[in-house]
Amino acid sequence: MKACILAVGSEMLTPFRVDTNSLFITERLNASGYDVRLKAVVADDVDELAEIVRSALAWADVIVITGGLGPTADDITRDAISRVLDAPMTEDEQIVDGIRERFARRGLTMPEINRRQAMVPRGATVLPNPNGSAPGLWLEHDRTGIALLPGPPREMKPMFEALMANRLAPKTIGRGLFRRVLKITGRTESDVDAHVQPIYETWTQQTVPITTTILAVLGQIELHLTAHAPTQADADAALDAAVGQLQEALAPAVYSVDGRALEAVMGDLLREQRLTIAVAESCTGGLLASRLTDVPGSSEYFDRGVVCYSNQAKTDMAGVPEALIREHGAVSEQVAEAMAAGIRERARTNIGIGITGIAGPGGGTPEKPVGTVCIAVIVNEQTRIRTFPFVGGREMVKFQATQAAMNMLRLLLMKSR
Amino acid sequence: MKACILAVGSEMLTPFRVDTNSLFITERLNASGYDVRLKAVVADDVDELAEIVRSALAWADVIVITGGLGPTADDITRDAISRVLDAPMTEDEQIVDGIRERFARRGLTMPEINRRQAMVPRGATVLPNPNGSAPGLWLEHDRTGIALLPGPPREMKPMFEALMANRLAPKTIGRGLFRRVLKITGRTESDVDAHVQPIYETWTQQTVPITTTILAVLGQIELHLTAHAPTQADADAALDAAVGQLQEALAPAVYSVDGRALEAVMGDLLREQRLTIAVAESCTGGLLASRLTDVPGSSEYFDRGVVCYSNQAKTDMAGVPEALIREHGAVSEQVAEAMAAGIRERARTNIGIGITGIAGPGGGTPEKPVGTVCIAVIVNEQTRIRTFPFVGGREMVKFQATQAAMNMLRLLLMKSR
Repeated sequence: MKACILAVGSEMLTPFRVDTNSLFITERLNASGYDVRLKAVVADDVDELAEIVRSALAWADVIVITGGLGPTADDITRDAISRVLDAPMTEDEQIVDGIRERFARRGLTMPEINRRQAMVPRGATVLPNPNGSAPGLWLEHDRTGIALLPGPPREMKPMFEALMANRLAPKTIGRGLFRRVLKITGRTESDVDAHVQPIYETWTQQTVPITTTILAVLGQIELHLTAHAPTQADADAALDAAVGQLQEALAPAVYSVDGRALEAVMGDLLREQRLTIAVAESCTGGLLASRLTDVPGSSEYFDRGVVCYSNQAKTDMAGVPEALIREHGAVSEQVAEAMAAGIRERARTNIGIGITGIAGPGGGTPEKPVGTVCIAVIVNEQTRIRTFPFVGGREMVKFQATQAAMNMLRLLLMKSR
Repeated sequence: MKACILAVGSEMLTPFRVDTNSLFITERLNASGYDVRLKAVVADDVDELAEIVRSALAWADVIVITGGLGPTADDITRDAISRVLDAPMTEDEQIVDGIRERFARRGLTMPEINRRQAMVPRGATVLPNPNGSAPGLWLEHDRTGIALLPGPPREMKPMFEALMANRLAPKTIGRGLFRRVLKITGRTESDVDAHVQPIYETWTQQTVPITTTILAVLGQIELHLTAHAPTQADADAALDAAVGQLQEALAPAVYSVDGRALEAVMGDLLREQRLTIAVAESCTGGLLASRLTDVPGSSEYFDRGVVCYSNQAKTDMAGVPEALIREHGAVSEQVAEAMAAGIRERARTNIGIGITGIAGPGGGTPEKPVGTVCIAVIVNEQTRIRTFPFVGGREMVKFQATQAAMNMLRLLLMKSR
């Protein structure tokens, strides 16, 4: 089964943007055995989009088109499809009502222009969009299914999942590609690869072959495993064994084998061990608190955070003695520990974390260059303190520091489990 | 002049890879007046590549193809072009010699398979590759120029630069594309479009025509203006006038006309007015502090932040009276104001911001559904308080709330300027 993925939008044809929707869509299509043979980004031009759709109809079993479903004149996806399939459009009153209600919920009147979003080519099925005003559309032409979905990922993704389950997966038979992602932090890419290459090399010759890709992303390494198997059950058996081998080789650096982010893994550990947490941040500026509270239900364990940028704030809010700052400097293990202890005591939580460092670009010295970050983690009676030399720009240093702090806590909590 | 960029290679059609060569090529083409209308990633399949090239020949002035020039059987770019143009291939002895020498320099014998790289379709010009064994090819068909370049960026880039200088730039009549981005917050896409469409419609007929794309991204709207002009100076004059018209029509919602993010705009305003800031966050969990401190040098004006998730923390750290929380609820304008006033007083800063709301997915009630966020901004003697009904998931609500808080502050500071 062959698939074609099209992204519509002139803004995606500038030097500044890449289409990432297609990566998500490819992964899901692959899992059901669809082979993506072409993906393209097309300008907001009805003739040009029509031309490429026409050409894909000659070979594709499914064409997934994202974008160009908005209310403005440059949103031309509906028009192009109507033209290619020779399917005139009519306004769908139910869609208009839905859009009107969406505006009303925010206390607004629907602008007339939004009626464009309710135009439906003859023969199309409307796909509901729970997260936005533009509904999707599904059409069939000879053997080819055509899906029109909005461009914003948070609208597109749930709609594509539903489409996959209801319409695309049932069309396929046979072998699919099934994937697992292992997430690792605290080790370098080449170190990880040296340890796991002898293991994954053998997998390509198995009955259910598995290919492995190693990917270094900011503050973590990902291992992507892809099994080629007739059924989900066969794939799962092979992947479970493979994941087990990697976990053993890399333990305890693997923090997630099911796609969960580090903050979600932390949340589960804290909930499981009924621990509460408070954090005092300087150079990370609130990013640690923000990541910890990205997890739904984090109010169960997250009590408070302070962002103490000035020295006065470190003293006021985390009780760091002025003398300690004078003696060791604001960026020191002593101050990180005092921040962790101070916020823990004030919040009466089990856990306190203190982070102080130099995020850059200014503020570095020969002894403490930009990227120097001291982190202290206190869990009840146990304390861990480390100084890291991170590389990269300001936002990279901030992210890596939050990643390291969570990993220090994770390793402590794993031990006590 | 219209351009099409094709990347050839099945490995680029997995969920893990994006084509970035096209960003570099787009930037160079744009500067010489080529408009990229289509870019695509194509599998290693001679029929499929031939089909898309055939379809692009109908409209493109130039087609740039990267990849698929290697020595193995799945390197099919030469074959596809030979087929489409009906131009049989012959082996070029000079290329074979060159490849043989390359191998000899490393003490190796050229494998026979590499002769494939010396196959040249009739009428093609060979483009030397100083950094690899695969030469490029240049062909012309009717009005369309076709460039075949290797995929690795370090081989492709210098070859494309040479091609640009020798063949592509001279074909243009010296007009380039020049861009500006306006960023807007606090208004909906259709509202913005309704106000600016009558303005930008007229620009397409100017001596220096400007096209406009409107883009809704989380918590903000972007207007991308592209001028088609003979020189940078002509483009700047037209774009300055256009930006001025939009700013007037949308004032004060336009916060940036030079690509700066909202937090950077805030930083400049605070620095300019010599103001200091402290924030107390509940539902945004530290994201506002983190965004404010993403700006280099933010320690000049950012004093501290508190993330008071629990009610106790709101009282301890921002001095919110327990009775106030009991009376109005933690998510209320009264509590937001008390948070802003409390943190401002404790930090002795000019500005205090308080944010309290329901980020979801849990915690909503009929009166205060998920997405309800109360924000208070105090600048010296002035106070602004608003309640927003944001839509979307937890991270979206968090982001939109920080965007709204910064915008409330921005509007207050603009007035006092």
